[in-house]
Amino acid sequence: MASLEFTHPLDPATAEEIQKATDLVKHLFKDVPLHFKAAGLDEPPKRELLAYLEAEHNGQTLPDLPRRIFAMWYIKHTPRLFEAVVDVTNGRVETSKELPRDFHGPVDRTELNEAAQVVMRDPEVLKEIKRLKIDETTVVLDPWDYGVDGEETQERHTQVFMYMRNPENNDPDSSHYSFPLDFMVIVDLCAMRVKKILRLPLGSDGSTTAVGTDVPHRRTNPSEPEYDHRLQKQKPRTTIKPYQVIQPEGASFTVQGHLITWEKFRFRVGFNWREGMTIHDVRFMDQDIFYRLSLSEMFVPYGDPRNPIYRKGAFDLGNVGAGVTANNLSLGCDCLGVIKYLDGHVVTVDGSPAPRPNAICIHEIDNGIQWKHTNHRTGKATVVRKRQLVLQTIITVANYEYIFAWIFDQSGEITFETRATGILSTQPIDKDASVSWGTRVADGVMAPYHQHLFNVRIDPAIGGHKNSFVYSDSVRLPWDKELNPLGTGYISKETLVHRAGPLEDSVADGRNFKIINPSIQNPVSLTPIGYKIVPIRSQMLLAQPGSWHWRRSEFAEHPMWVTKYQDRQLFPAGDYTNQSIGGTGIKSWTDKPDYVVDEDIVIWHTFGFNHIPRVEDFPIMPAEIAQMHLKPYNFCTHNPTNDVPPSTQAFNKSVLYDDLQHTIASTNGISTSREEARPCCDTEST
Amino acid sequence: MASLEFTHPLDPATAEEIQKATDLVKHLFKDVPLHFKAAGLDEPPKRELLAYLEAEHNGQTLPDLPRRIFAMWYIKHTPRLFEAVVDVTNGRVETSKELPRDFHGPVDRTELNEAAQVVMRDPEVLKEIKRLKIDETTVVLDPWDYGVDGEETQERHTQVFMYMRNPENNDPDSSHYSFPLDFMVIVDLCAMRVKKILRLPLGSDGSTTAVGTDVPHRRTNPSEPEYDHRLQKQKPRTTIKPYQVIQPEGASFTVQGHLITWEKFRFRVGFNWREGMTIHDVRFMDQDIFYRLSLSEMFVPYGDPRNPIYRKGAFDLGNVGAGVTANNLSLGCDCLGVIKYLDGHVVTVDGSPAPRPNAICIHEIDNGIQWKHTNHRTGKATVVRKRQLVLQTIITVANYEYIFAWIFDQSGEITFETRATGILSTQPIDKDASVSWGTRVADGVMAPYHQHLFNVRIDPAIGGHKNSFVYSDSVRLPWDKELNPLGTGYISKETLVHRAGPLEDSVADGRNFKIINPSIQNPVSLTPIGYKIVPIRSQMLLAQPGSWHWRRSEFAEHPMWVTKYQDRQLFPAGDYTNQSIGGTGIKSWTDKPDYVVDEDIVIWHTFGFNHIPRVEDFPIMPAEIAQMHLKPYNFCTHNPTNDVPPSTQAFNKSVLYDDLQHTIASTNGISTSREEARPCCDTEST
Repeated sequence: MASLEFTHPLDPATAEEIQKATDLVKHLFKDVPLHFKAAGLDEPPKRELLAYLEAEHNGQTLPDLPRRIFAMWYIKHTPRLFEAVVDVTNGRVETSKELPRDFHGPVDRTELNEAAQVVMRDPEVLKEIKRLKIDETTVVLDPWDYGVDGEETQERHTQVFMYMRNPENNDPDSSHYSFPLDFMVIVDLCAMRVKKILRLPLGSDGSTTAVGTDVPHRRTNPSEPEYDHRLQKQKPRTTIKPYQVIQPEGASFTVQGHLITWEKFRFRVGFNWREGMTIHDVRFMDQDIFYRLSLSEMFVPYGDPRNPIYRKGAFDLGNVGAGVTANNLSLGCDCLGVIKYLDGHVVTVDGSPAPRPNAICIHEIDNGIQWKHTNHRTGKATVVRKRQLVLQTIITVANYEYIFAWIFDQSGEITFETRATGILSTQPIDKDASVSWGTRVADGVMAPYHQHLFNVRIDPAIGGHKNSFVYSDSVRLPWDKELNPLGTGYISKETLVHRAGPLEDSVADGRNFKIINPSIQNPVSLTPIGYKIVPIRSQMLLAQPGSWHWRRSEFAEHPMWVTKYQDRQLFPAGDYTNQSIGGTGIKSWTDKPDYVVDEDIVIWHTFGFNHIPRVEDFPIMPAEIAQMHLKPYNFCTHNPTNDVPPSTQAFNKSVLYDDLQHTIASTNGISTSREEARPCCDTEST
Repeated sequence: MASLEFTHPLDPATAEEIQKATDLVKHLFKDVPLHFKAAGLDEPPKRELLAYLEAEHNGQTLPDLPRRIFAMWYIKHTPRLFEAVVDVTNGRVETSKELPRDFHGPVDRTELNEAAQVVMRDPEVLKEIKRLKIDETTVVLDPWDYGVDGEETQERHTQVFMYMRNPENNDPDSSHYSFPLDFMVIVDLCAMRVKKILRLPLGSDGSTTAVGTDVPHRRTNPSEPEYDHRLQKQKPRTTIKPYQVIQPEGASFTVQGHLITWEKFRFRVGFNWREGMTIHDVRFMDQDIFYRLSLSEMFVPYGDPRNPIYRKGAFDLGNVGAGVTANNLSLGCDCLGVIKYLDGHVVTVDGSPAPRPNAICIHEIDNGIQWKHTNHRTGKATVVRKRQLVLQTIITVANYEYIFAWIFDQSGEITFETRATGILSTQPIDKDASVSWGTRVADGVMAPYHQHLFNVRIDPAIGGHKNSFVYSDSVRLPWDKELNPLGTGYISKETLVHRAGPLEDSVADGRNFKIINPSIQNPVSLTPIGYKIVPIRSQMLLAQPGSWHWRRSEFAEHPMWVTKYQDRQLFPAGDYTNQSIGGTGIKSWTDKPDYVVDEDIVIWHTFGFNHIPRVEDFPIMPAEIAQMHLKPYNFCTHNPTNDVPPSTQAFNKSVLYDDLQHTIASTNGISTSREEARPCCDTEST
C-alpha cells in the first residue's frame, strides 16, 4: 500500500516485522501457548536517531540502525506477563523480562469476547436475565477495563455492563445504551469465569437502593433511542444539499512513504498500537521545531460515587490502544477533498500481524481567512486564505469515539484537536429519580458525569535539542508619576522553569507558556527564538487526592509538566495502566526534579472536558471539540504567510447565491456563468 | 438588491429612510449647517416588537409599527452634539435632545481626513518632517480616537500617529506601519487646528528619552516590510493548489429579505452603523431561543505606560462603528462556495445615505465530523458530517481588521467567532533598545502590548422571555464510607443568580453558565430547559482600577454580567464612548441591582485576547481566532442532529490522493473515476 518503497527508522512496524518478532518470542517459549497483547515499533534511542536525522537533513550517508519491535504477551490463561524488545534486523531478542504481578497488559477484543461468552453461559447470569423477563438472545454486553478498588490488584478482571437490544426492533445494530439492565458482572480473565454479579443502584440518593424486578421504563422511552438511520422512527432530513471539495490540480501536500511535505513544513508520521498516530522530526522553514508529538495518554474517570460503579475509569491508550482501535477510514465519509490514507499494523492474540487499513487520513481544509487588510487611503484590500493540512485518526473504544487530528497551518502553527463523540456509557435509573452526579438522557436511562483528560507529549527541538521552558504573565504596572502616570501600563513578567515538575495555568495572569532556545536570538525581536503552547483551559482531575483514580492518573492533576528527556519515558500514567496502582508515571519521574534549563526537555500538557451529559448528547453525541495550539513565537523574522498568494475568484470559483438559485430553478444544473476569472478584492468602500 | 420586497420592523434602515430622517432633522435647524455622525434603525421597544413577532410566528394579522430612525449630529464646527429619534413612517421627529459637553460623537473618515490635511499644512509639523530629512509627500498619517487623560474632557481631539512610506518603493499602498516617525500630533477637531506636537519616547526604559534627529534605522530593516504582494521583495509561493467548494444543488439556506431559514433554525439579520451585523428572533425547532444577539462593544487598551502614548485605547464600535467600517466583501475572496451577500446603509456627514454593499456574507461550511459510532459487534459505522451556516462581516478600523461571524450548527449550537487580523499599530524604538511593554517586530519598530476586549450581548428567549441565569460548578464529593467510599465521586453544584451584576468565571471549578427557563421542564432530564454559554477564558482588563481605561470600559473588568432587560440598554460602556469619562455603562445599570430570577434578562459576556505581539504578526497578522458558544442544554428531547443523513461518497465525492496524482501526471486533468456512488462506512476493522 505504500506509495514508494522507502524505509526509515521511524516507519511503523510492518506486517513482516511483527510476524518475525512474535516468531522469535514464540521460539523462546517453545510449546508454551502465548497470548500476545501488543507489538509495534520500538523507536531507536534518541542519540542514535538524532545522528540518523542529522545525516538525513544534510544529505549525508545514513547510519545503519537495526529495526526493533516491542512485544508484550501473557503465557495463555496465566497471570504471567512479559515484554521484550526484538531486533528483527539481526533476528534476536534483545531484552526480555517478566513483569511483577501488579502489572497487567491491555484488554483485547478476543479476550473480552470470550469473557462475554462466559457471562452468557453462566447460570446465575441467566437467572438475572430471566428475572427481567427478557429473551437472553437480545442481551448485549459491554466488557470494560476494570479499574482499581485496592482489592485483589494482582487478579486480572473485566467488568461487564449489561444492556439489551431495543425491544421494538431487536436489531443487532440497535443502540443498546438506550436500554441498560440493572446488574453488572465481574469476570476473572485469567480463570475465565464469572466472579461476581452485582445489582446497580437505581435510586435518587447515594445509597444502593432496593432493586425492582423489571428493567426500568424501557418500553416508555419517549425520545429517539436509535442513532442508526435504518432503525430511526423518523426518516433522515432532506434539507441539506451536497457540499463537495474539488481540488482540480490535486493536493498541495506530497507523501513519500511516511514523509509528508506541505508548504513550509516537512515531517514524518508514525503509527503504533498504543498511541496510534505519532508525528516526528517536524521542520518548518528548514529549521527543527519538534522531535516528536503524540497523544501520550487519556483518562476517563466517572463521577458516580456508588458501589459497584465507583471504580469506573478508563485509560484508553494504555488499557486498549489508539492504534488497536483505529477505524478503517472511508473515502467520502470521514474527510472531504483529495485524501491520502496510511495503513498500520498491530498484532493478533496469536502473534500474527493485524492490519489497520486507512488508520490515518491526510487532507487539506480551507479554514477561512488567514489575514486581511484594507488600506482606506487607496481602497486596496488584500486577503489571504488559511489553508491547513489535517492528519486525522478515529478510535472506537466500546461506546465512545475519539477523533484526533494534528493540524498544520501555513503560519507555522500546529494544532492538536480532539473531538469526543460516540455514545454515552449509561446506567439504569428509577422512574422520576434524579442524581446529582448524572443526567437523565432518556426515560429510565442515566448518563453519569465524567471527565475526559488527555495528555499531549511535546518533545521540542526549537532550533535544536537544547531548549528551556518559560511562562510569562501579563501584570499591571504600579501607578507611578513618571513611569505610569495614567495607570494604563502593563508588562510581561517572564519566569524561567529551573526544575522538572508540574506547572499551573493562570487565566487571571494571561499566562503564556513558551519553549525557547536560549542559544539562538531572533535578529528582529532580539529575544530567544521560541514556540508558544496555547493550552486548553480545563478543569483538572476531580477525584479525591489519595483516591485510586488520583494515584493512577499521575498526569491528571496539573495542566503542564516539564521533564528532562529520557528514552522510553513516553507514558505519563506509566507503561502499564490497566488495573495499575500508580507510582510509575510522571510524578515518580519528577520526584527528584532534574535541572531543565537549556537541556533536552519534554513538555506534557494535560487538558480535557468535564462531560456533564446533556439530553442533546443522546442517543449519540455531537462532537465536543477542543484544540491546543503550538505557535511560532519570535521564531521567524516576519509573518511566514506573507507570501501566500492573494485570495481570488479565479482560484476559488465561488458562486453567487442569487445567480445559482435562479439557474437551478430554470435548468436544475450548475451555473458556470460566474466562474470566469475576474479581478476582486481590489476596492472596498471606506 | 433585496431578493424579495419584504419589509419587517427589524429590517435595517433603507437609503430612503435615512434620507428622510436627516431631511426632517435639517428642517428643524433650518439654515444651520449640520455634521451628521450616525443614522440607523431605531428598533421598536420590546413590548411592541414582541406583539409583532408573536403575531408573525402564529400567522396572525401583523400590527402596524412605525419605522424609526436614530440620528446623531453636530452643529458643524461646534461642540454642540444632538441625537433624535425620527418617525419616518409618520414624518416627524419623535424625540430630540442636545447632549452634555462631556459627550462626544464618534469619529468619521471625513473629519479625520480634514484633520490629516490640517496637520500637513502646519508649519511646525513641516519643520519636524524637515528635521527627519524626509519628503513630506511620503508622510502617511493615522488619525486615531484620542482617549482620555482627564484633561480638557470637553474638547474634541484626534491623535495623529505619523508614518512614512517605504523609501524603497514610495508606493501609496506601502505598509507605512513598518516606518513609524518619532512624533505625533494632537488636533482640536472643533477648531480644526493643530494643538500639540509631541515627540515619542524611543528608549529602553520608561522615561521619555532624548530624541535623535533621524527616524531610527528605517533603511536597514532586514525583514519583509510589505504585506501587499505587489510590493514584496519575494514572489508569492506557488505551492498551494486550488481548493473549490462546489454546491451543485445550491445552498441549503434560504434568504427572504432579512429572514434566514437553514436546517432547524429560523432568524433575522439586522445591520446598523454601530454594531454592524445583529441577529434577531432566533428560533430552533420552532421554539424561541434568542431575542437578540450582538457584539455590543469592544475596547483595545494599549499597555505602553509612557507619555504621550499612555491614553491610547479604542472603543471600535462606539467610537467608529462596525457598520460604518464594514468591508465590501468580494465573491471568491472572503468565503468559498455559494454566497449570499446583504447590503447595509449608514450616513455621510451631510446626511445622505452611504451604502455598505456586501457588508454581510452568508455561506455554508463543512466543519468535519458531527458524530460517529462504530458498533464493534457488527462492524457497522455511522458517520454524520457537521454542516454550519456562517454569517460573516469584516471591519477595518485604521490599522486593524476584525472578522466577526455568527455560526449556526445543525446541533442547535450558535458560535460567535472573532478573528483579529490586519496590522499592528507601531511606534519607533531606538537601535538595540527593548521595552517590557512591547515587542520589536522590525528593526526600529516596536509594537506595544495591548488587549482586545469584546463584549457580546445575549438577549435570551429560552422557550419564552422569562428566564433565569445559573452557574454550576463541578465539585468533588467528600470521602464517605457509604456514599463515596473510593473518593471518585463528584457532583454539579448549581447557583441561581438572584441579582443583576457581574459574575466571575472559574476554570478550577469547571464553571458552566446556563440560561434556563424555570417554567418549562424538559420531559427527559426532568430539569428546566436551557442554553449553556461556553465562555472564552480570557484575562480581563489590565489597566489599574481607577484609571481612565478602567472607568470608561465598564464591562471589561468581569467576564459575565446579568442585567434585567431595559429598552435602549445596548452598549455596556455607555452610548457615547468617544473620549468618554465613564459612569454611563453597565456598572451604573447594576448599581442598584435588579432582581433577575424568572425575568426578562440580558447576559453580557466579556472576552478577549491579550496581544503580546510576535515577530510573526508583522508586517501583517495571521488571524487570532476565538470562539464563544451557545449550546442547547437539556433543551431538546434528544440529539437534534440524529436525523442528519449519513455521510456518503455519493454525496461528498472525495478523491483518492494516489489515483489523482496518477491521473494528473498522465492527463493533467481531474480524475472522475472515483466519483461514482459506492457504499461506504459500512464495515470497519475491529
